[in-house]
Amino acid sequence: MLLLHLSDVDENSWATKLRDALGGYRVVQRGDDFDPREVRYIFVWKPKADAFDGLTGLRAILSLGAGVDALLKHKALPDAPIVRFVDADLSQRMSDYVVAHVTMHHRLYTRFRADQTARRWTQLYPPAASETTVGIMGMGVLGQDAAKRLLPLGFTLRSWSRTPKTIDGVTGFAGQENFDDFLAGTDILVNLLPLTPETTGILNLETFRKLRRKLDGGPAIVNAARGGHQKEADIVAALTDGTLGAASLDVFETEPLPQDSPLWAIENCYITPHIAAISSETTGVRYFSQMIRDHEAGKPLINVVDRQRGY
Amino acid sequence: MLLLHLSDVDENSWATKLRDALGGYRVVQRGDDFDPREVRYIFVWKPKADAFDGLTGLRAILSLGAGVDALLKHKALPDAPIVRFVDADLSQRMSDYVVAHVTMHHRLYTRFRADQTARRWTQLYPPAASETTVGIMGMGVLGQDAAKRLLPLGFTLRSWSRTPKTIDGVTGFAGQENFDDFLAGTDILVNLLPLTPETTGILNLETFRKLRRKLDGGPAIVNAARGGHQKEADIVAALTDGTLGAASLDVFETEPLPQDSPLWAIENCYITPHIAAISSETTGVRYFSQMIRDHEAGKPLINVVDRQRGY
Repeated sequence: MLLLHLSDVDENSWATKLRDALGGYRVVQRGDDFDPREVRYIFVWKPKADAFDGLTGLRAILSLGAGVDALLKHKALPDAPIVRFVDADLSQRMSDYVVAHVTMHHRLYTRFRADQTARRWTQLYPPAASETTVGIMGMGVLGQDAAKRLLPLGFTLRSWSRTPKTIDGVTGFAGQENFDDFLAGTDILVNLLPLTPETTGILNLETFRKLRRKLDGGPAIVNAARGGHQKEADIVAALTDGTLGAASLDVFETEPLPQDSPLWAIENCYITPHIAAISSETTGVRYFSQMIRDHEAGKPLINVVDRQRGY
Repeated sequence: MLLLHLSDVDENSWATKLRDALGGYRVVQRGDDFDPREVRYIFVWKPKADAFDGLTGLRAILSLGAGVDALLKHKALPDAPIVRFVDADLSQRMSDYVVAHVTMHHRLYTRFRADQTARRWTQLYPPAASETTVGIMGMGVLGQDAAKRLLPLGFTLRSWSRTPKTIDGVTGFAGQENFDDFLAGTDILVNLLPLTPETTGILNLETFRKLRRKLDGGPAIVNAARGGHQKEADIVAALTDGTLGAASLDVFETEPLPQDSPLWAIENCYITPHIAAISSETTGVRYFSQMIRDHEAGKPLINVVDRQRGY
């Protein structure tokens, strides 16, 4: 039996599609009449406090999101394996966002928009992509996809991750001891890290001050991961005093971003309302129904979260 | 003997570098003491009316720009072959501009910026790149390079050119009779055409009305070619009445764009001051000095302009 516990999305739509895809397998929702002990899988998005009550027969927890930081903090999280949603469509959309904002800052959008507002015609030639270094933090599925899209554009790429990663065309840095070296050659910093205790607040003033100051107007950051990665007071300060030339933020410490946040009004801060990427229902149904069928047939689960590591 | 006739750029710098590269070959500038009949090559950028006076021994006219539309209108243009500057570095920079502006409109920048100004948190998920069709007008060196960069990003691509072009992954349309079909499936229209009598004013209201209306806010245009391609009054009208969702313009009917142009103040018009791409001196010196040496050694010229065709 598969139990759905999805908040803030259309749970009925997912239930209908999963029932179609898992013909013969029982799919239930909160409020249905069922014995919780018979639930073998639970499919969750923002599970409430009582989501896992009585589920003593769980074989796996299926997470709709790619990031499981919030899920791992659930007070009553059972011991079953947690499966993350890894989705080519989601990776594509995330890379779409990353490429759009990296190229925007590389092409000095902030500067030319200010000139336009002032009706000023001042020619300045942005550097070629090859002369600009994009530093990607996080080299999981999303980081690797972003690298794969940025490379053919001609950018010089470097990455930083917990453990060393070897990606063709990307200079890899790993571990805390190489973080400063990584930053020292980075013009545009892209964050695609998982949110863990080690990465919380990593987008702070100290980090920004270590970035290379080669790009006209100053270095830029692009955060498509989690609001918990960023210290917003530091971003406000850095954008205002020139430590950063620009910031593209899709995520925030508090979401929706509060009305009184100073970020809204900062000219060189580019805000989107956590829409960089969304998991498509079609892909999700295919992914999870296949996984349940395979697992029931004795195959191992894939994309299982390492709880120790946090992702 | 090579004569330089370069306006609006640092002619002395080019002269020094070309003298270094063409050791043994005489390189002269306007004002130097030389016999015009002995000039075998002239290297031009915005040549003045008397630029070609007395040059009866010309073997080739070397053009610093990739576009030769203005040069072809020169009243005293000699009959010698015209060589265009084809430059990988210039193509890279042009594609940098194209990709930055295509991805900006694909990711609905105008919409999210308006939301930010209003402190509005309204989630809307842009389509995946694969769901968005970019139509490239002009499939010469620049159009092909842009296609090469946009393809790995996942966009659906189509092209329109005078003669049929077969490019892997790009649906090709050719000739006036297929122009409407090309437009009918295009969400973001990129202009990289040469400016000829046939393409003058091609970016007009009639063209814009034929674009597909699938992208949230309406179709977008990106003009990185020539101001002569665009009817600016039509662009103003189209951006104002919603026929177009956005326009990125790097070139203008009159440059610098006059202070009183209404384009400056249109929110969904993105103006840059003809800086999409510039020919680098290093690449240019290498290209033209090699060409002169090869030609003097009896090899044919490459990238020669077809005057009939206009590019």
